[in-house]
Amino acid sequence: MKDFIFNVNTKILFGRDQMKNLASEIKKYGSRVLLAYGGGSIKRSGLYDEVVKIFEDNDIFYKELAGIEPNPRVDSAREGVKIVRENDLDFILAVGGGSVIDLSKLVAGAVYLDCDPWDIVIKKAKIEKALPIGTILTLAATGSEMDAGGVITNLETNQKLGFGSAYTLPKFSIMNPETTYSVNVKHTAAGIADIMSHTMENYFTLGDGAYMQNRLAEGILKTCIHYGPIAMEEAENYEARANIMWASSWAINGLLSTGKSTGWSVHAMEHELSAYYDITHGIGLAILTPRFLNHILNEETVDMIRDFGINVFNMAVTDDKMKDAKKAIGYLHAFFEQDMCIPMTLGEVGIDDEKLEVMAEAATRHAGGTIKGVVELTKDDVLEIYKASL
Amino acid sequence: MKDFIFNVNTKILFGRDQMKNLASEIKKYGSRVLLAYGGGSIKRSGLYDEVVKIFEDNDIFYKELAGIEPNPRVDSAREGVKIVRENDLDFILAVGGGSVIDLSKLVAGAVYLDCDPWDIVIKKAKIEKALPIGTILTLAATGSEMDAGGVITNLETNQKLGFGSAYTLPKFSIMNPETTYSVNVKHTAAGIADIMSHTMENYFTLGDGAYMQNRLAEGILKTCIHYGPIAMEEAENYEARANIMWASSWAINGLLSTGKSTGWSVHAMEHELSAYYDITHGIGLAILTPRFLNHILNEETVDMIRDFGINVFNMAVTDDKMKDAKKAIGYLHAFFEQDMCIPMTLGEVGIDDEKLEVMAEAATRHAGGTIKGVVELTKDDVLEIYKASL
Repeated sequence: MKDFIFNVNTKILFGRDQMKNLASEIKKYGSRVLLAYGGGSIKRSGLYDEVVKIFEDNDIFYKELAGIEPNPRVDSAREGVKIVRENDLDFILAVGGGSVIDLSKLVAGAVYLDCDPWDIVIKKAKIEKALPIGTILTLAATGSEMDAGGVITNLETNQKLGFGSAYTLPKFSIMNPETTYSVNVKHTAAGIADIMSHTMENYFTLGDGAYMQNRLAEGILKTCIHYGPIAMEEAENYEARANIMWASSWAINGLLSTGKSTGWSVHAMEHELSAYYDITHGIGLAILTPRFLNHILNEETVDMIRDFGINVFNMAVTDDKMKDAKKAIGYLHAFFEQDMCIPMTLGEVGIDDEKLEVMAEAATRHAGGTIKGVVELTKDDVLEIYKASL
Repeated sequence: MKDFIFNVNTKILFGRDQMKNLASEIKKYGSRVLLAYGGGSIKRSGLYDEVVKIFEDNDIFYKELAGIEPNPRVDSAREGVKIVRENDLDFILAVGGGSVIDLSKLVAGAVYLDCDPWDIVIKKAKIEKALPIGTILTLAATGSEMDAGGVITNLETNQKLGFGSAYTLPKFSIMNPETTYSVNVKHTAAGIADIMSHTMENYFTLGDGAYMQNRLAEGILKTCIHYGPIAMEEAENYEARANIMWASSWAINGLLSTGKSTGWSVHAMEHELSAYYDITHGIGLAILTPRFLNHILNEETVDMIRDFGINVFNMAVTDDKMKDAKKAIGYLHAFFEQDMCIPMTLGEVGIDDEKLEVMAEAATRHAGGTIKGVVELTKDDVLEIYKASL
């Protein structure tokens, strides 16, 4: 196990009855709030009205940053910074899913820097200080409610890139599973695929002796596999929504990667799909992951993938390890396709072979030449994985 | 899943090379340190000299509170408070295992109260503020390095009781698995039994729908079962010591109990053993746990205990659930006895039937009449469990 530092300070307020704590949590940090949200679903659900009433009842001044996109764009961050500065705001409340929270993190850091927010994403500038952020989560997927990072899209440059800073870890997150009842089956499935992908990015490593972390990862995967189909069938099953929501935080808050070197290979490949096409992140991850595992399957990785099948899918084993590992990958594919009803080819989500080469080049370039995960991927490897996903 | 708040702010610095961060971590909070430690093992190992040199090199003033007992006594807390006040100290560094850390927490809170430290333990006084605490952990067991509670013994009153306050959560903990190389087999086994007991106290609950938490608990139990025997055989196996050490924190820092009602029944019973006899806490827990599970085994709990056998011990199952559940308990007993070489009867640790009645009465009285865990235990239940453990 490698040396590590684990420091996750986000206070989680979980359950049906936590909004009563919103005002007091905010007031620990500020009283002039940027209220950030997305496309209006929080207005339909009544959550927006609830938040605004709490603000009014507690003399909390606020300005809105509305319309943050599903793949949040740097333009929204520019707008957010402007609103914060013009109104002397001192806190950001992000109400929504990962996109809203990610974008809020970029605003929080950019406010204190004399540069374009995109400079932070492309590492030309570094966050040294940030506005405090709180979140009210409405979608179980990205884990942004309890981690320090975000992913931002720049449509002008066709880039979708991650950034992170310890300063942008949310101070608190209110997580009410009921807010996810209205998430439709497609986005429920995409969210679960996202959670599972985060877990697997942390899980599939070699030789680090992080046994406990891998057993915990398997626990999170089993949770997704157990409750995914239930949430698809019964949108208002509290137990399913609660387990999935809590799993979303632990898949990516850093615990599973403690003591490990992780490469996040599938994310590196998927970000190019989302940068060039308007596809849902979790769907892209689900499509790529089994092809990625097939591609990296070799004598060195066979036990790792076979153990995944045994420990996560209770797979019966044979003496043929390679066959077993392929079977494990098949189970994962089948879970996404059959249980989660995810379209499992790029063709089905409108991606043909036109830009595969460009995207493979970009994916490896953004990773510094090759993607350095459990198995190093060159541009040709990525291209093969894309082609196998068509 | 019940509503919950999860808020664990301790910064963990884990691994071989973290002492370089000690001075800077302390200086975030203070510069006049109470250095708390136990019986001198940190002097033999060289850790004491290392800490003192860091203090001297960084102009950190310190006074010592030495000789904290394995079951830490309230007298030491009184002494600690006196030293802090006389020297105007502003930080406590606890170097040792759970006893040293637990005692330090009591000192940290008592310093700000105009009462005897024992009043905090018996809930006559409440911690409203505390000195910041840092820890250097040298024993994987209690999890005190990443939780807010402690257990203190009062020999005058034959009481061993827990207390807790969010204010006494350590600010940081340095965890170097190498510091546990010198822990002998008996205390290695006791530590693992302690970690497993914490996990099981959180795990054995009914009907709360905390599926993810239970899968994580199983992961921690599997980690103990996998590495326990290795650490017993090879004291300097880094991977084993590291996994066990990291497991110790997660068994009890609150994650496993999120969304659950937990009763900590076995701890309530064991604390009386330690209060009346000089026995090692983890050994007492190991002896009592299988008898406790046998005692509560009924139609309502049978699936819970059987699942434990299946998911933790990969137990093959039959159509006879009751028989399977008993087999699961047998595996746990055998693991403690055979793999961990723990004496599995009270007789072997010097406890006869003389005080069983008194202890059973005390255990239930301290719990408010009955012990309210997964199955409610009366004084007679506790007495039966003690007798079955003889």
